[in-house]
Amino acid sequence: MTDIKRTCVVGAGAIGSLFAGHLGTVAESTVLVRRSEHADALNAEGLKVSGKSDLQTKIIASTDPADLGEVDLVIIATKATAVEPSARTLQGHFPNATIMTVQNGLGCEDVVSGFGDWPILSSVTFMSGVRHSDTHVEYELDTETWLGPWAGGSSNYEQAQAVEKLIADSGLRARAFPDLRPAQWSKLIFNAVVNSVAALSDLPHVKAFAEQDELTDLGHLVHAAMDEGKRVAAASGVDLYEDPWEMNVEATSHGQTGNDDYAHAPSMLEDVRAKRATEVDWITGAIVREAARVGVPAPINETLYRLVKAREASWRRG
Amino acid sequence: MTDIKRTCVVGAGAIGSLFAGHLGTVAESTVLVRRSEHADALNAEGLKVSGKSDLQTKIIASTDPADLGEVDLVIIATKATAVEPSARTLQGHFPNATIMTVQNGLGCEDVVSGFGDWPILSSVTFMSGVRHSDTHVEYELDTETWLGPWAGGSSNYEQAQAVEKLIADSGLRARAFPDLRPAQWSKLIFNAVVNSVAALSDLPHVKAFAEQDELTDLGHLVHAAMDEGKRVAAASGVDLYEDPWEMNVEATSHGQTGNDDYAHAPSMLEDVRAKRATEVDWITGAIVREAARVGVPAPINETLYRLVKAREASWRRG
Repeated sequence: MTDIKRTCVVGAGAIGSLFAGHLGTVAESTVLVRRSEHADALNAEGLKVSGKSDLQTKIIASTDPADLGEVDLVIIATKATAVEPSARTLQGHFPNATIMTVQNGLGCEDVVSGFGDWPILSSVTFMSGVRHSDTHVEYELDTETWLGPWAGGSSNYEQAQAVEKLIADSGLRARAFPDLRPAQWSKLIFNAVVNSVAALSDLPHVKAFAEQDELTDLGHLVHAAMDEGKRVAAASGVDLYEDPWEMNVEATSHGQTGNDDYAHAPSMLEDVRAKRATEVDWITGAIVREAARVGVPAPINETLYRLVKAREASWRRG
Repeated sequence: MTDIKRTCVVGAGAIGSLFAGHLGTVAESTVLVRRSEHADALNAEGLKVSGKSDLQTKIIASTDPADLGEVDLVIIATKATAVEPSARTLQGHFPNATIMTVQNGLGCEDVVSGFGDWPILSSVTFMSGVRHSDTHVEYELDTETWLGPWAGGSSNYEQAQAVEKLIADSGLRARAFPDLRPAQWSKLIFNAVVNSVAALSDLPHVKAFAEQDELTDLGHLVHAAMDEGKRVAAASGVDLYEDPWEMNVEATSHGQTGNDDYAHAPSMLEDVRAKRATEVDWITGAIVREAARVGVPAPINETLYRLVKAREASWRRG
């Protein structure tokens, strides 16, 4: 895959649309979607990216990978909950492609590897966008996507570097790592706590997440839960790239305004509000399973995990 | 107070109405309420109790204790969140009365003692009722009220026995203990966990609260949180009367039907659904504060406490 001529983004939500729209400026950009009306709209109109970028690209879209021809790079940009059906659809297609997963949490690479022997790259993205329609996405936070070879497969650092270059050439920010786990785990620990606490409290990521004065202050909970995650990472031999607690303090400072009105609503909170299945199994669940594997107590993460699962169960009572 | 001729129930919700209605059959029953229309209705119609009892009693009601004459026994039956304003209203009145508190959790006796030097009895009740109107309550669960002298004050076991006899004579079930703490703490630990988990998960007290098969099963969380509470009680020198976990297993079996449709919605869940301040400070908060005092780790109860407080805070964002 030294030369990436044709790409396929699977799932055109906000993140998938940002990738597909930008990649269309440097490669042939195809998109695999679930709804045929979505594919029709993309084939007819292409994809418009506004906000931090301003571009309009041609897209080849379908609900069937057989319509998309051979591709060199597949980016699976669905939610973690949809990776299994997506990978099942890809089975038997794109034999020469490298696949990059870009979900929150851990474990999606494993799922993908069950459906084909593609080289797999792991990634985590910090960029964000707002999807205005099937054919228009706004590029909001122009932060990096981090990627690296998945330890469980056959990809290598050079492939990660080739994808880093392609993404950077397309106008997004990317950074390849020989070993992604230090970065992946920093974000995992951050997300496991911030997403679960937001989902359970119905609070976006406000300053209270970093306050530690009164006994009931939420910062005590967030800090202690992140410390558990750090002990799990250490016992797994992962030397974190960034400190999750510092990420939390930084993210809740809301820049120069310091105004909670601009607080971010984490995806798990949006899912709970919409009574949609969350990604908690791949995020907080990943910490809890790894804690059990390495024998490190994680009572707070266990509590958060079980409470979010119980909240999901409450919707099934009708 | 060997002879209890006149009683005053403060707060005529379901529990207060059950007490006032029954006590009217063996004593002069007065009621102190917040709304004047409520007092007017009670003075005009009296109080009807249906369900497990079938009676209609005369009530003397007011919003001002000065209207109620001298009484021998006051039962404060408001929610824990309303005890402070209620006790403030009582200040300077009823000099010869014994006061019994009947709130969930711990700490209300302390609040009452700040407004007068009445002898104080502690109690916990397991009975339940449904309030159909200002003058009609249905007696649902005919389980006991447990009472005993409050350790922080001047009451004694004989006073508790006199109140036990009065309540039993009135047609409700009561049991006096020389030391209420073993019973009080059993219910406290049970409530701290069951109420918080219900409030956060939006699940009533279903069988899942006792299931411990899968990693995500809620029973693991409930069990571990109750074990924390038991360690706190032991370190405080309290020898529990009943095992909270067994209470949980029993309560979730739903009798012979085993049907979750009959699962009880704990009061904290009802409060959260109605976006009303919960009693968490007196329940889960009491465990957390005592844990800190005796130096026993309680990370799960701390997490539950902080999450419920954060949930309350979310309503203030509007």
